[in-house]
Amino acid sequence: MTRITGFETYDVRFPTSRTLAGSDAMNAAPDYSAAYVIIRTDAPDPALAGHGFAFTIGRGNDVQLAAIRLLEPFLSGRDLDEVLADLGGLGRRMVSDSPLHWLGPASGVMHMATGAVLNACWDLAARRAGRPLWLLLAEMSPEEICGLVDFRYLTDALTPDDALALLERGAAGRAERVETLRRDGYPAYSTGPGWLGYSDEQLARLCAEAMAEGFTQVKIKVGAVLADDIRRCGIAREVIGDEAGLAVDANQVWDVPTAIGWVRELRPFRLAWIEEPTAPFDVLGNAAIRRGVHPVPVASGEHVANPVMFKQLLQARGLDIMQIDACRVAGVNENVANLLLAAKFGVPVCPHAGGVGLCEIVQHLSMFDYAAVSGTADGRRIEWIDHLHEHFTAPAVTSQGRYRAPAAPGASTEIRPESLAEFSYPGGPAWRS
Amino acid sequence: MTRITGFETYDVRFPTSRTLAGSDAMNAAPDYSAAYVIIRTDAPDPALAGHGFAFTIGRGNDVQLAAIRLLEPFLSGRDLDEVLADLGGLGRRMVSDSPLHWLGPASGVMHMATGAVLNACWDLAARRAGRPLWLLLAEMSPEEICGLVDFRYLTDALTPDDALALLERGAAGRAERVETLRRDGYPAYSTGPGWLGYSDEQLARLCAEAMAEGFTQVKIKVGAVLADDIRRCGIAREVIGDEAGLAVDANQVWDVPTAIGWVRELRPFRLAWIEEPTAPFDVLGNAAIRRGVHPVPVASGEHVANPVMFKQLLQARGLDIMQIDACRVAGVNENVANLLLAAKFGVPVCPHAGGVGLCEIVQHLSMFDYAAVSGTADGRRIEWIDHLHEHFTAPAVTSQGRYRAPAAPGASTEIRPESLAEFSYPGGPAWRS
Repeated sequence: MTRITGFETYDVRFPTSRTLAGSDAMNAAPDYSAAYVIIRTDAPDPALAGHGFAFTIGRGNDVQLAAIRLLEPFLSGRDLDEVLADLGGLGRRMVSDSPLHWLGPASGVMHMATGAVLNACWDLAARRAGRPLWLLLAEMSPEEICGLVDFRYLTDALTPDDALALLERGAAGRAERVETLRRDGYPAYSTGPGWLGYSDEQLARLCAEAMAEGFTQVKIKVGAVLADDIRRCGIAREVIGDEAGLAVDANQVWDVPTAIGWVRELRPFRLAWIEEPTAPFDVLGNAAIRRGVHPVPVASGEHVANPVMFKQLLQARGLDIMQIDACRVAGVNENVANLLLAAKFGVPVCPHAGGVGLCEIVQHLSMFDYAAVSGTADGRRIEWIDHLHEHFTAPAVTSQGRYRAPAAPGASTEIRPESLAEFSYPGGPAWRS
Repeated sequence: MTRITGFETYDVRFPTSRTLAGSDAMNAAPDYSAAYVIIRTDAPDPALAGHGFAFTIGRGNDVQLAAIRLLEPFLSGRDLDEVLADLGGLGRRMVSDSPLHWLGPASGVMHMATGAVLNACWDLAARRAGRPLWLLLAEMSPEEICGLVDFRYLTDALTPDDALALLERGAAGRAERVETLRRDGYPAYSTGPGWLGYSDEQLARLCAEAMAEGFTQVKIKVGAVLADDIRRCGIAREVIGDEAGLAVDANQVWDVPTAIGWVRELRPFRLAWIEEPTAPFDVLGNAAIRRGVHPVPVASGEHVANPVMFKQLLQARGLDIMQIDACRVAGVNENVANLLLAAKFGVPVCPHAGGVGLCEIVQHLSMFDYAAVSGTADGRRIEWIDHLHEHFTAPAVTSQGRYRAPAAPGASTEIRPESLAEFSYPGGPAWRS
């Protein structure tokens, strides 16, 4: 029998604020960081461990890590196979644990901690199975997948029977789609060109590079100064041409009336979407904006804390594109619920990525969605930012504007030991200078 | 000049799980706890300090405290008068600080930390002014009160002009209402009788005692077993008679369809309200339940993280009674916004209290509301639980079913030093045994 022996945790921070990569209308100078957990076992093979993390942008990463450590008693000392056989139950126990629930509920630091730990468990499960996570999930039966979901507050929009029916539909043609993924990968779009701190020249050059690399959509940050946004959208549109997609991202800066007025000014650039026009938890505000900026699609989700919020955004028609984040919600489990909700409402999922390791892990969810849930990649793309991948043992890779399907066992969440050491905060060499 | 010197913090936990006081359908065995902060100054008078706390139910109180400590740099070393002259600005800076915002957004551990620190600042402001907090707030001008509010995501429901008009209306007759508060206090209701862990005999006896003490409304916990709820509501209704109010509280246990079915079964008991029938962040779910259980009023709010969520609950007609909590949101500042939203929508505010010190602090907000915002106590009552008040230097007091108006300077948030020592976790004598 293999036992879980405990957590090993790391406060890892990358000094990204020293450049302006990552700058947007809300986040002027983030240091991309990971509150990182390794779930250790007593297996003879030390590689049989689970790697997970919460992504933060610097200050507070230590508090995030302390929240992760609170969850160690749920796993320490337990039989590994028993845990892995019921990750749905583990997720429900952690999310509904009464003192921890009080610290959310289902949002913020405590919820992200649950996500980090559950994702680490999934990494471990996929390693144990010798499969990349997307394939492990895709090969589960509809009943097993349903068992991962906490339906407690979802049943007015998605019942277990609904989910089962969707998954049974999704099972048809699955093997063929797995082969397609292995051959062709999954569509991506590039956010690299559009950080708010970049000059017009950088913007134009990076848009051209993205097109040359095979991307068919770019995204730029907006929301600080309208005249700048109009000029920058014009530059981007001119460089990428009429055929490519141009998405814009306001990172929550506007109230509802401002969002409507501002986005109407950008409509001539034929936007692929306006992302996070206002507070991500303002369901009704998003719905009002969506009506007000028609036909510009509204996208949101990287700060949506849980499936109940996504449920409402869908019920209220507050978004056209669901942008799941791998680490904001309670891990793979809640993202399975999110994918099922999106499928039920017929809304495409274009995950949030970038940060530290978000590309690495979220690609598995989109590929699982393609293989076994929605069954399509139409209108779907995963965000791509070519940043910090070198710190991962199995980095995400794009070529010709598409993510390659990961082949290595696990969830692609493992940070290289050298990087953990170098960027440990505050003691690592990167921070001592 | 007086400077803020820094934070002193305490992890204080009361072993309430050893009895079943505090038990409900979600929280079987809470240890009521405070992540407690004292903001110290270099004033010659050591009493010139600010006391604040986040309320938790045990596990994780240390993480909550770590989040509070993250906020020390916003205050440490600053000129006290300068800080107190712009608590609105301080609140907006903390809530919109980009790395800390990422850890919410505007919810969970980080947001409660902001609430604890802002409330401590308000305690300090009221001490410095020699006023109880409710009176300090009531004596501010409409413009000053408006300046406390972060309108960023509220303007589609409440503009600064709306708020100013409400406050100008509220200013008329203010001096007279201040006198009324000093003489008569403010209405309360009692939750003491109805904990889920209590026997029928305890329930009946405690309901009778509440009536004898002058309360005109009691609240009991429901949501575990329908037959038990029907029996317990029957017992309570029989003991309190036809005239008194009987509220019930499900503490989030139901999904939407279950809530509707269950509450319909309890309608014959003429409920004052059904509280927290489902997830507190399910705006549309609350609205569906409210329609489904008519004419039973729906109450919610103790887990509502911020004014944007209350805004939506009001816009969607998801609640009849707004239950603000003094410590869940970002302190007095966000509760001023909540009171203004309630006034705009004509919804009464009946605050959540109990826990540790929640009665102490929230009474100030209701009294401010009566004096200077809504101008009425009709249909309004503050929750009362006679529990743990002895640990406070200026405990809340009820008599004849009404809160007495606090007279001592401050926000009534100071825990006695002996109690801090006795219940410090894990080193205090109460925990060593």
